[in-house]
Amino acid sequence: MISTHLDNFTVVLHKPKYPGNIGSTARCLKNMGMGKLIISEAGPFSPAEMKIMSTHFAADIVDRIGYHDRLGDALAPFQYIVGTTSRLGSARGPVLSPREISPSLAELSRRNEVALLFGAEDKGLSNSDLRYCHSVVAIPVSEKLKSINLSHAVMILCYEISLAAAERKSVFTPKLASSREIEGMYEQVKEVLMEIGFLNPQNPDYWLMHIRRLLSRTGLFSRDVKIIRGICRQVRWALRNKNS
Amino acid sequence: MISTHLDNFTVVLHKPKYPGNIGSTARCLKNMGMGKLIISEAGPFSPAEMKIMSTHFAADIVDRIGYHDRLGDALAPFQYIVGTTSRLGSARGPVLSPREISPSLAELSRRNEVALLFGAEDKGLSNSDLRYCHSVVAIPVSEKLKSINLSHAVMILCYEISLAAAERKSVFTPKLASSREIEGMYEQVKEVLMEIGFLNPQNPDYWLMHIRRLLSRTGLFSRDVKIIRGICRQVRWALRNKNS
Repeated sequence: MISTHLDNFTVVLHKPKYPGNIGSTARCLKNMGMGKLIISEAGPFSPAEMKIMSTHFAADIVDRIGYHDRLGDALAPFQYIVGTTSRLGSARGPVLSPREISPSLAELSRRNEVALLFGAEDKGLSNSDLRYCHSVVAIPVSEKLKSINLSHAVMILCYEISLAAAERKSVFTPKLASSREIEGMYEQVKEVLMEIGFLNPQNPDYWLMHIRRLLSRTGLFSRDVKIIRGICRQVRWALRNKNS
Repeated sequence: MISTHLDNFTVVLHKPKYPGNIGSTARCLKNMGMGKLIISEAGPFSPAEMKIMSTHFAADIVDRIGYHDRLGDALAPFQYIVGTTSRLGSARGPVLSPREISPSLAELSRRNEVALLFGAEDKGLSNSDLRYCHSVVAIPVSEKLKSINLSHAVMILCYEISLAAAERKSVFTPKLASSREIEGMYEQVKEVLMEIGFLNPQNPDYWLMHIRRLLSRTGLFSRDVKIIRGICRQVRWALRNKNS
């Protein structure tokens, strides 16, 4: 997953309380190909404490944290600001999900600096904080527990944005066996299953159909075909060998 | 976001090290409408330590954690097992993203117990652990830092599943064979493949691993297990019969 425009995202933590959460946030950013972290109206926090959770891999993000005494100053350089909330209400205006907003954020980030703004662990963002925001996002959660850990909320939003930025659908695309390979294999399977008396020679296709269905549900690789044909050969060899 | 079938998902943490990560995992489950957590080959851990991160809202999940001494026992009741990895490679077979796999998991969970299996914080799951899995998932991450914190990995997978469950449109849900049935079948397959000389008695597991992977990629029904066991019996019968 590579997208140069992920550099244009910055996570802004407003009044965070726990250095562990900040360190975890730094690690999430690194996981998702982002790297800029700002803290507003809190800290400074101990880099050593934050690095326990960031791991040394994301220590550079911790070392570059920018601190601001006022939220307005922290947000001043950004062209687009996304607020996050777990509280829904008409007072907050329209609220989008991370999945809904991410394509447009990925697009905006090509020419704009985008801030992802998160509130304190306990209270979130106030209506006053949300005034700065161009849009507001809420992560869909269960009624049973709406309060998401700060770094987990950061992770989900950054994950959605990085997927949208990459627009990549597949992690790994397998190369499958051809129909020619598959049919040759089934011929051999049929012969050997008849030889051992598993298939009725009068109607071999009934059970063979079930076997085809079983194997066809998965996509077979060339290597799988070779393994199955190898087993068939070996069954025949074993039969002949014991016979003689 | 409400789906009764989220009850059919269980997160299985194999050899986890840190109670904080387990507590965080419990909170993520609660956030996403799930509630079952199993620990394999580790612990027991201090409930008090785990509850620091679970918060009291997810303390019930911590209190109900099931411990198992062996991974095979932990997984025995499940009809479908999803492994997670950060390492991609052809040796691991096809790997899906959480987004790719979640719709089918949401569907399967209507009639099957599904395990989401996560390895230790440092080492993840071994190839041997992945043998139990019907499919393998990797979270798309930046090249800069591929290692995701355990609870964040759980969060992303559960988030994707809960979204997919909420969007789910009913098609057809197969009832799959349990891990117990599958493992019994592999024992029989192994014996007969050794008998015909396909597997090397010194190292039977090498080729067996490839066969397991081939068959596990598809979800096996109970009927499929019976067919494969029937073929094994018939091979043995044919060998004995011709012998005498």
